[in-house]
Amino acid sequence: MHPAYLDLNDLGMALDLRWMHIPDKLVARLSDSLERVHREMGDLEAGAIANPDEGRQVGHYWLRAPERAPDPAIAAAIRQVQADIGRFVGALDRRFPDVLLVGIGGSALGPQLVADALSTPGDHRRVHFLDNTDPDGLARVLAGLDLSRTLVVVVSKSGGTPETRNGYLATRAAFQAADLDFARHAVAVTQEGSALDRDAVAGGWLARFPMWDWVGGRTSVLSAVGLLPAALQGLDTADLLAGARAMDEVTRSPDVAANPATLLALAWYQAGEGHGRRAMVVLPYKDRLALMARYLQQLVMESLGKATDRRGDTVHQGLTVYGNKGSTDQHAYVQQLREGPDDFFVTFIEVLEDGGGPVGSLEVEPQVTIGDYLSGFLAGTRRALADVGRSSITLTLDRVDAFRVGALIALYERAVGLYAGLIEINAYHQPGVEAGKKAAGAVLALQRTLLGRLAEGHRGTADALAADLKADPADVHHVLRHLAANGRITRTGHGLEAIYAA
Amino acid sequence: MHPAYLDLNDLGMALDLRWMHIPDKLVARLSDSLERVHREMGDLEAGAIANPDEGRQVGHYWLRAPERAPDPAIAAAIRQVQADIGRFVGALDRRFPDVLLVGIGGSALGPQLVADALSTPGDHRRVHFLDNTDPDGLARVLAGLDLSRTLVVVVSKSGGTPETRNGYLATRAAFQAADLDFARHAVAVTQEGSALDRDAVAGGWLARFPMWDWVGGRTSVLSAVGLLPAALQGLDTADLLAGARAMDEVTRSPDVAANPATLLALAWYQAGEGHGRRAMVVLPYKDRLALMARYLQQLVMESLGKATDRRGDTVHQGLTVYGNKGSTDQHAYVQQLREGPDDFFVTFIEVLEDGGGPVGSLEVEPQVTIGDYLSGFLAGTRRALADVGRSSITLTLDRVDAFRVGALIALYERAVGLYAGLIEINAYHQPGVEAGKKAAGAVLALQRTLLGRLAEGHRGTADALAADLKADPADVHHVLRHLAANGRITRTGHGLEAIYAA
Repeated sequence: MHPAYLDLNDLGMALDLRWMHIPDKLVARLSDSLERVHREMGDLEAGAIANPDEGRQVGHYWLRAPERAPDPAIAAAIRQVQADIGRFVGALDRRFPDVLLVGIGGSALGPQLVADALSTPGDHRRVHFLDNTDPDGLARVLAGLDLSRTLVVVVSKSGGTPETRNGYLATRAAFQAADLDFARHAVAVTQEGSALDRDAVAGGWLARFPMWDWVGGRTSVLSAVGLLPAALQGLDTADLLAGARAMDEVTRSPDVAANPATLLALAWYQAGEGHGRRAMVVLPYKDRLALMARYLQQLVMESLGKATDRRGDTVHQGLTVYGNKGSTDQHAYVQQLREGPDDFFVTFIEVLEDGGGPVGSLEVEPQVTIGDYLSGFLAGTRRALADVGRSSITLTLDRVDAFRVGALIALYERAVGLYAGLIEINAYHQPGVEAGKKAAGAVLALQRTLLGRLAEGHRGTADALAADLKADPADVHHVLRHLAANGRITRTGHGLEAIYAA
Repeated sequence: MHPAYLDLNDLGMALDLRWMHIPDKLVARLSDSLERVHREMGDLEAGAIANPDEGRQVGHYWLRAPERAPDPAIAAAIRQVQADIGRFVGALDRRFPDVLLVGIGGSALGPQLVADALSTPGDHRRVHFLDNTDPDGLARVLAGLDLSRTLVVVVSKSGGTPETRNGYLATRAAFQAADLDFARHAVAVTQEGSALDRDAVAGGWLARFPMWDWVGGRTSVLSAVGLLPAALQGLDTADLLAGARAMDEVTRSPDVAANPATLLALAWYQAGEGHGRRAMVVLPYKDRLALMARYLQQLVMESLGKATDRRGDTVHQGLTVYGNKGSTDQHAYVQQLREGPDDFFVTFIEVLEDGGGPVGSLEVEPQVTIGDYLSGFLAGTRRALADVGRSSITLTLDRVDAFRVGALIALYERAVGLYAGLIEINAYHQPGVEAGKKAAGAVLALQRTLLGRLAEGHRGTADALAADLKADPADVHHVLRHLAANGRITRTGHGLEAIYAA
């Protein structure tokens, strides 16, 4: 049996793989691959092109160690932006107790995780999010804000992500409707020269911060994407960076037993037989880490869910992630984990310091606190799963603070990179996302065509209009039904037989 | 091919299974089973014992059709509680703009779903939740409330669920610390005679509402558990009930093609080959339905995740549910859905009415609204998945209102019951949850023992103390590390070699 308990005392963390039963022979079998993977990771950190299809470098490790950037200009830019964020936030007056971040995917999940994990009553500002193109959802968030006292941060690498563009346009319109000068409230985080950047320049927005080609969305939380909102909230961004930097140092080690990222990658390999055959259930026993599962869902599934490997062979790799928090989820789906199919492994995230002030020290029974129950439930659930042969990883943090959140982020970034190397896939692109976007574009084009046809006086069922246009009847029905429900065209009858007209 | 589009015009809903490709021969093969399942469901509704191991009836359908209860006393009790809730809420003065619901699992997820799905700026009260035994998490919620203006609703069937008991004790202590009379703010929802009920009687709480033996936690949202917080929020509880009642009527039909619950059960059977071999990814394209996935996670996984079937044969059944919302999740894990393993099917939940007032009517391009993008992304993602052979269900609601939320709840309650019948498991118990609770109890007992030993002057490593007590070293280490981190015992050194003492 492989030594399975790793004490990371300097980081205030520990990794317990005793419930994973990783056999020595797996480590032996993969040792050549691990050596290769660490070498490749070294090349990446030195500036190798990771994304041959996009010709991009992958430099999120440089964000917390600028001296490692392969180009001094990159190092200088990183330091400059960190200093600029500090200056910008320091110079802000008290006009803005609320911040609205408009972004989606990598431009929202990291900031959401950080904001929730580290919020305290002493926060300088509250951060709110627009992360979708649901008009009702946008309106609901906007209605809860005093716009005259809200700073808006629009985050989009290309500036062309439609959800973010729409959230930005809705927000700007709300400012205009309230007779407020949007530009005096607006900050852009985007690539230089993007459509968003041009808007910010032309409008004279308060500030612009760059996104770089060499930082992918799902690993961008320690760039301006996450550092700016964290700084606005009043969090210790230097500690976030220091935690990630310290974890990077530990996870560069080629010594398997001393490297928590290598151990995680091995554990995932073992659990899923190198093919993601078991889902990763993420259970942080701490409310403020409840977004970890959603954060990891993106980081892991977007990185590892790939049709082809590096050689171009079809592999359909992936690693499903879901979860929310313990012990709450014990009352939701632990029934299935304990009795259902053997198709998962759990990652328990434990936090030793209970916190909560007087709530934490209250004894609910003699010598038993509320936190003892939380801790007991974790151990009890782990045991109940182990008793029926289900495996689990336990990751322990001394406490939840900026340093450890930074370290947690870096740990999983590295583990994903190493595991992707083991299974020989490219973790740094997302070609599968394009197909849906293109198909959505076709649906919007179909909508324009249909509105045109109806305006010309055509009318009929979805099937008839589809036949006319040689379009897909299901898509035509989808578009017409939505337009009719919002009073933009008329409908007589219902279901597939409804007649649509202008 | 089976007719796969079901228009439920009277309910303002539709179910589209065209992307599931359910073959006629599956319907034919299951037709005898379906007949049996509908007969069994009829027996249940008539008062049959569904839970032989617990000797319980399953009566959540009676909550919205009291005349169907097998016993007039039950019907009278249902009507009485609904009237009592109305009277209690109607008589409340304006002292309580905030409501704090303390509950977990079935006593929280339904109320959370309803509160978020139906919130409007006109809500009478805001509902907050304590749904865990994390002291820091409890303190965080309590710190955000003005307790002098907060009504506390404690929801626990037995009154013995530790998370809820702990949340209640923490809340009561916070009231005491603020020199407020907790009883003048407190309401209990619990079984008559439970520990919680006795506390409420002895303390002279504002009100008590019953939970019944014949309503399971995960189907309790239309009992006082969900109706009371909904009424306090100012929602239309009569419409919630009416929607569920109307859906129940439709889903009693033995006609497969006309019954959306039967069709869902068939689709799940088809997708997972009757063994839950594909996960159900729930993607509501509407922010206010984002909790549907977590709600269904509990309803589905706790009902269907079972080791044995009704005959006692080992089957390890289950149906994994995860998801959050579209189009947001397209930027998280749709990459894996499109390119990764064929181990899921999607349930798209579509809402036709965009809402959002001026945000909804804003044109972001000529003739294109923010909601057109949301609608286009759903259709585009569905198409992109279908192009690579991945299946999906689309459930369409005209709008999100109390009637349709009630209908949605009833639809899935019935579908779960029918599917459980098809695979011949008991959907109405959760025996697997006990193991973790027992193991947690053992860990707390171990903690007491360890505290005693240390107080007697023993000291040593976790391994040594475990050997002494013939206890599991991992559990001993878990307990000691947690106690030390919170200053309740001392620790020298770190990792597995740390020495613990009083």
